[in-house]
Order: sequence, then C-alpha cells, then structure tokens
Amino acid sequence: MPKDGKISNSVIRRLPRYYRFLGELQEEGITKISSGELSQRMKLTASQIRQDLNCFGGFGQQGYGYNVSELRAEIGGIIGTDKRLNAILVGAGNLGKAVALHLNFENCGCKLIGVFDSNPELSNTPIGNGKILSISFLESFCKANKPQMAILCIPKESAKELCDKLVELGIRSFWNFSHFDLNPEYGDEDIVVENVHLGDSLLTLAYKTNNR
Amino acid sequence: MPKDGKISNSVIRRLPRYYRFLGELQEEGITKISSGELSQRMKLTASQIRQDLNCFGGFGQQGYGYNVSELRAEIGGIIGTDKRLNAILVGAGNLGKAVALHLNFENCGCKLIGVFDSNPELSNTPIGNGKILSISFLESFCKANKPQMAILCIPKESAKELCDKLVELGIRSFWNFSHFDLNPEYGDEDIVVENVHLGDSLLTLAYKTNNR
Repeated sequence: MPKDGKISNSVIRRLPRYYRFLGELQEEGITKISSGELSQRMKLTASQIRQDLNCFGGFGQQGYGYNVSELRAEIGGIIGTDKRLNAILVGAGNLGKAVALHLNFENCGCKLIGVFDSNPELSNTPIGNGKILSISFLESFCKANKPQMAILCIPKESAKELCDKLVELGIRSFWNFSHFDLNPEYGDEDIVVENVHLGDSLLTLAYKTNNR
Repeated sequence: MPKDGKISNSVIRRLPRYYRFLGELQEEGITKISSGELSQRMKLTASQIRQDLNCFGGFGQQGYGYNVSELRAEIGGIIGTDKRLNAILVGAGNLGKAVALHLNFENCGCKLIGVFDSNPELSNTPIGNGKILSISFLESFCKANKPQMAILCIPKESAKELCDKLVELGIRSFWNFSHFDLNPEYGDEDIVVENVHLGDSLLTLAYKTNNR
C-alpha cells in the first residue's frame, strides 16, 4: 500500500487491468517484466506505469524490472481478491445466467452464493453447481447468509423496489446490469455501485465506427 | 456538430450517457430541462453539462433550458444512431445469447444480422427471430452481407484466429467480450474496438467494497 493509504481514482480504475495483465504474464511463465515491456502490452506509457506502480511499493528495480507474482499479489491485496465477498444474483434470465456462469467470481474476490428469480418456472432449475431459488426466499436467505453484494440482472421496472429491499436487508454493494441508474438513488449513503451499461458501450462503438 | 467538427475524448465517453438520460426524459414526457436539473439526474456539475452540450450547438437557452428531443436527436446524429451498422455475433453461449437477446441494437444504431457458433449442436437452433448459424457459413455470409461490426463472445483461445479472419473479411469494428485484448494486436490499423471486461468491473466493485 502507498505510505498514506491513498490511491487516486484514475489509478484505481487501472488496478483491475494491471491485475489481469500480470495474471496473463504469470500464465505465460514470465517472472519479471520491465516497465517498457509492460507498457507495450498495456498501451500505456512506461512513465505512466512507473508512476502507477510506485504507489504500491518498491517492486520495480533499476535494470531488473518488476517481479510479476509479487506485484500481482500486492495489487490483489489492495483490491481484496483474497477476501471472498459473498454475492447473490437476482434475475436469472439470459443475462443473469451469462453473468453467473461466465465470470470467475473467485478470481475477483467474490463468491456467488445464491441465484434468485421471480419466475416460478425457473425455481429449482439448475444453474452451475446450484439451483435457481424463488425470490420468495430472498429475505430469509439474506438473513441467514448475510451476503455483502448483489448482482442485479433484472428489468429496470423492478429495480428500485428490489434495491430498497436489499439495502434494508443489509446489502451495501451492487453490481448493476439493469438499466436503472442506482447512484442517484443511493448516492449519499454508504453504498457502492458499479453500473454496467452495455448499451452505452455499444453506442460508443457505433460512434467510433461512424466517426473514424 | 461543433464548428470545427472535433469533440474531446472525455465528451465522447459521456455521449451515450446523455443520450440514454435524454431518452428516459422523453419517456417520462419531459420536453425541456435545465442544466441544473439534468446535472442532478446525471451526477455531473451543471457547468460540466453546459460545457459539454455547448459542443453540440445552441440547444440551451437562458431561462428555458434544453429542448430534450432536439438535443437527443442531435446527440443521436453525432453517434450515428440512424446509421444501422450491420453486425454479426460470434459465440452463442450464455454470454452471446444474453448479448443477442438483451440489447436493443436498433436503439444503438446497429442491426444484428447473424449469430454464429462453432458448436454443431447449436446450428439452426432458434435465437430471437432467427437461427444460430454454423461457423462454416461465416465467410460466405460476410461476403454476401458485408457486416461492418462483429461482436465477439468467444473464449480467449479462439479470439486471435477468428479476429484475423474477420479483419480479412473486411470487418473493422469489434465489440469484444472475449478476454483477449484486441487493441495491442490491431492498434495501428484502421480498426475500432470496444473491449468489455466484465471481470475488471467486478474487481473494481470488490475494491470499492473492501476499501470504502
């Protein structure tokens, strides 16, 4: 950790990317890398990388480069990938299923402990190693298992009511795939939100395609 | 469009969000909005919003506010939401299905004209209003239909080879959900890429949760 414990927002946004690239280097059996090589891979300037990584302690050494596994462990520690945050997912449609089955939660410091849906036809159908639970069990499940995080893969219309309930049940972290923008609602409380607006991403690509 | 035709990168990143919020205002029947009200909704400062929207022409009027539908149409025109870029999607697993079925492509200036998968068991199975096609038809389909955009929902291992092929077939826009980072490969050519790294987003939420 940096001496004063503070990391700037822009460095925070880059942390997952460093963590991912360093993981790829490990998979390739690379044990050390210079800031120059890392900058080529990550399309950042070498000086940017040196500046960023200096925040996390003395892993760079003149003429040696960075120790890949030590640096990755340090960044993982800052993110908290060893923490195992218990997460539930609500909304087991195509998107919810994709998120539940596609992501490696444990690599991201999380564990998916329950998947819920309001459609009775989906109740008890298998998903991964578990089963989809009826939304009617949400409250008792949360009281018994105290998840810290909720993943919202529900339509916009249902989002506000569900979020209010989840906040009431003690959940303070939301990974939000619904089109409902959580921040304006809960912006002033101790609640963290990561909104994923896939449509915004597609619109950005459309802009880039039409204006290149 | 701004007089010199140039919009800064940071404004471009905000364009889809303006477009989305203005669409929500339209749905709510709101025809005009002040920069102050818009700033409260979007969690940007009013001066930031005035600065951004001044780029797009004279839609703001002292004491009146912004005309919602005119401003949205202008921003849509800049993004190119009227353009109908033809897109194909490769990889019809859970994630590919979710993307194909969950997104409103037409609202984003795109049209999904084909979905492909290499798994023979998926060939000819229905998806939305169409059918999943065998990857063996990819080349003839692209030659006949000339899609401009490809959506990659495939494993990292298959990505490099497929992208090379798609580039060869004339595709220059990629919406990339695979864990393969396209930019370093094609960074120097006339190719635009929007990478969606869901894992990075979850890691960011884990960081925020562990460090709030």
